[in-house]
Amino acid sequence: MTRTAAIIGGGVIGGGWAARFALMGWDVRVFDPDPEAERKIGEILANARRSLPMLYDRDMPLEGTVRFVETMSAAVDGATWIQESVPERLEMKQQVYQTLQATCDPAAILASSTSGFRPSQLQEGAARPEQIMVAHPFNPVYLLPLVELVPSAKTAAKIQSEASDILTQIGMFALPVRAEIDAHIADRFLEAVWREALWLVKDGIATTEEIDNAIRYGFGLRWAQMGLFETYRVAGGEAGMKHFMAQFGPALKWPWTKLMDVPEFNDALVDLIVEQSDAQSGHMGIRALETLRDNNLVAMLRSLKQQDAAAGALLNAHQRSMRKPLDETVPLVTVRRTVPVDWTDYNGHMNESRYGQVFSDAADALMIHVGADDEYISNGNSYFTAETHVKYLAETHAGDAFYVATRVLIGDGKKLKAYHEMRTPEGEVIATCEQFMLHVNLTTRKSCPPLPDVLARVEAVAAAHKDV
Amino acid sequence: MTRTAAIIGGGVIGGGWAARFALMGWDVRVFDPDPEAERKIGEILANARRSLPMLYDRDMPLEGTVRFVETMSAAVDGATWIQESVPERLEMKQQVYQTLQATCDPAAILASSTSGFRPSQLQEGAARPEQIMVAHPFNPVYLLPLVELVPSAKTAAKIQSEASDILTQIGMFALPVRAEIDAHIADRFLEAVWREALWLVKDGIATTEEIDNAIRYGFGLRWAQMGLFETYRVAGGEAGMKHFMAQFGPALKWPWTKLMDVPEFNDALVDLIVEQSDAQSGHMGIRALETLRDNNLVAMLRSLKQQDAAAGALLNAHQRSMRKPLDETVPLVTVRRTVPVDWTDYNGHMNESRYGQVFSDAADALMIHVGADDEYISNGNSYFTAETHVKYLAETHAGDAFYVATRVLIGDGKKLKAYHEMRTPEGEVIATCEQFMLHVNLTTRKSCPPLPDVLARVEAVAAAHKDV
Repeated sequence: MTRTAAIIGGGVIGGGWAARFALMGWDVRVFDPDPEAERKIGEILANARRSLPMLYDRDMPLEGTVRFVETMSAAVDGATWIQESVPERLEMKQQVYQTLQATCDPAAILASSTSGFRPSQLQEGAARPEQIMVAHPFNPVYLLPLVELVPSAKTAAKIQSEASDILTQIGMFALPVRAEIDAHIADRFLEAVWREALWLVKDGIATTEEIDNAIRYGFGLRWAQMGLFETYRVAGGEAGMKHFMAQFGPALKWPWTKLMDVPEFNDALVDLIVEQSDAQSGHMGIRALETLRDNNLVAMLRSLKQQDAAAGALLNAHQRSMRKPLDETVPLVTVRRTVPVDWTDYNGHMNESRYGQVFSDAADALMIHVGADDEYISNGNSYFTAETHVKYLAETHAGDAFYVATRVLIGDGKKLKAYHEMRTPEGEVIATCEQFMLHVNLTTRKSCPPLPDVLARVEAVAAAHKDV
Repeated sequence: MTRTAAIIGGGVIGGGWAARFALMGWDVRVFDPDPEAERKIGEILANARRSLPMLYDRDMPLEGTVRFVETMSAAVDGATWIQESVPERLEMKQQVYQTLQATCDPAAILASSTSGFRPSQLQEGAARPEQIMVAHPFNPVYLLPLVELVPSAKTAAKIQSEASDILTQIGMFALPVRAEIDAHIADRFLEAVWREALWLVKDGIATTEEIDNAIRYGFGLRWAQMGLFETYRVAGGEAGMKHFMAQFGPALKWPWTKLMDVPEFNDALVDLIVEQSDAQSGHMGIRALETLRDNNLVAMLRSLKQQDAAAGALLNAHQRSMRKPLDETVPLVTVRRTVPVDWTDYNGHMNESRYGQVFSDAADALMIHVGADDEYISNGNSYFTAETHVKYLAETHAGDAFYVATRVLIGDGKKLKAYHEMRTPEGEVIATCEQFMLHVNLTTRKSCPPLPDVLARVEAVAAAHKDV
């Protein structure tokens, strides 16, 4: 049976919740007095409809309905999950809970998106405090999995476990917070960094852009996959967390941040951290952790490279600066590289699907070689691949070097037929590809002959390769 | 001509510098009194040789030589770049500079990896302070691009600009820091978060693992691609940075972190931040920024999914929970999904290379359908693709839905031939693939007949599909 989520307050966060629930097959009812709410949430829904399904290599549940209602009681009628995302004003939130609890199902989960308030503060004056807890998500809610689940002593255990189950079902990660504290966990870090950053801007040490670059080209990439402690465990080298603590412990008293209220750095604290770090990461040796970190970083950096964004844009610029013309050999060596980790599957060998990448890259190099380069393409001409025929002859693995030897078999008017051999450095053939391409006009999307210079180059290369 | 880098201090950071320089074609000389230094740097070099080339879709420069020397003067002889990475003790560093400057080229760059000291502190007592600056990298130095370049008033302009140029040439990003400050920029954030995290562990709010999860499943992913301010500009919604500041300005005085020494939140500060944020991101509208963020997040999450790590492992688990058997239609619908952003190229259409992915996924679904599932494979049996023949008939774009209709043309002993049609939801054929597979024994890597149950399923499917 389709379940219903009530969204109380439809800003960036409420809208994100609405989109997450709807795309995971829940019916959604939204209450927000803002006359613009429907349009604003519509924009968020459009973003989510485009991007959330891209995370999954399969079809999605049938989308639930999203209805905008006039009252809180209409929103919560029949709702299993009620999510409050009104502005960060405690009295307003408390009032909202009183109104919601007047009509909602006493068994429903009543969760707050608050960044900072403790659940016991939210529960003050509530008819049924046991129904209320904090479920703090991260923007964009429809893509990021984290939800901090913070109960107070009064929150019912059943509400906590049901909330956790439902969040897992809609693709999120419920992080139970062991004790109430202002701003929970993640926002304490965010707020500390925000305050530190405001100082740096105010004092003229760095601009907002420089600060963003200091984060996204360095530790941001580490934190996206390992977080703080596991990263430092690896940084400790062979001696691990204990060494890291010994090395940077004394720095706790130095003015490296405005946060100068530090816990006493004693053996008890070191032991506590080392023990927890061992429980977290001790099942892996330092080399295995380094490989995990490096594989994740390579994969993420390559994904950003493909988007030509952030650190990936830096890599693309660097790669362009290394570009040099192909040697005029027969056959042409169009690709020479190693197999990256994101091309392999759980067997560790290069996945079938990536051979297409290899031969596509070989064709790109051939195109540049015959003068069908970036400029030629931006002027509205290109070659499109019409047909490929790949034979898979041997396996290859992450880190293995290989090259592609390319011959032009046909270069005749708009037709170009290439033959690629993917080889180990020793010359063993890993795979072959016959590739049939057609020259196209990018405006009409129809085939047509290449411009004379490119045609002449193609004919010359084909003639040279025919003699072999 | 091959240039030389001198590495003074060969720990995790010094070793990372050595690897970065060597793999970018520089000769490297390492000085470190640790008798284990050569072995330790050897491990770092091995990691770097495996992973750094994976970042590049082309061949790398010829690797430089790495030599371990007995004295600092032997290390700096002929060196263009001298990198000091000795422990964080000011007097030791000052002494090292005196020794280095006794014999090094006065035109060489003398850079420190210090996390915390200011360059003017390092220059005290130096013969040529103008030669010295901070070049603070991030571990692993061979993968992360960021280097904070911090001059003092005494550092020569020529040294600064040459350092910046060289860092770009070795694939790094030089961030010039406008004024000296303890811990530069990034480490101020790291230190604030570290101190806050120690409190949370000490006070029993969260374990090290919970803290890491609070980072890597949420804001860590945001920071890996946009950093702090641009993320908050987007979070401000249509009203942007000004709205975000108004919303969270009052929170500056709340106890959301132990960092309670905050700058005065006045119009001057708001205007300064808004102005810098406009200069940084104002050329893009809010929708464009949202799309940029979402595309980056989708691409990074998918890369982690492919590694089955961090948030990607969560996505895989969620996807497995959604698995259901194929409907027994003829043809089978083996894939039904949308085109993700990481499958498209700068034209916005699905890149030629990803059709292989689509048909490989279709084959995987077919395999599961005939009983050659995860368990069957883990028992040492599988199908390998021997040959594919793809015809590209129409274009498709990011976000477009499609499905694959699959027929089994031959299912005879160890041979299996499938025919896939990739179609739009309306039925237009985008591409076709004839795929020839062989059943293999994963131990011998040789072809052999499938186990009886699978063979019977394959024969039944082939018989049903033959009638069409």
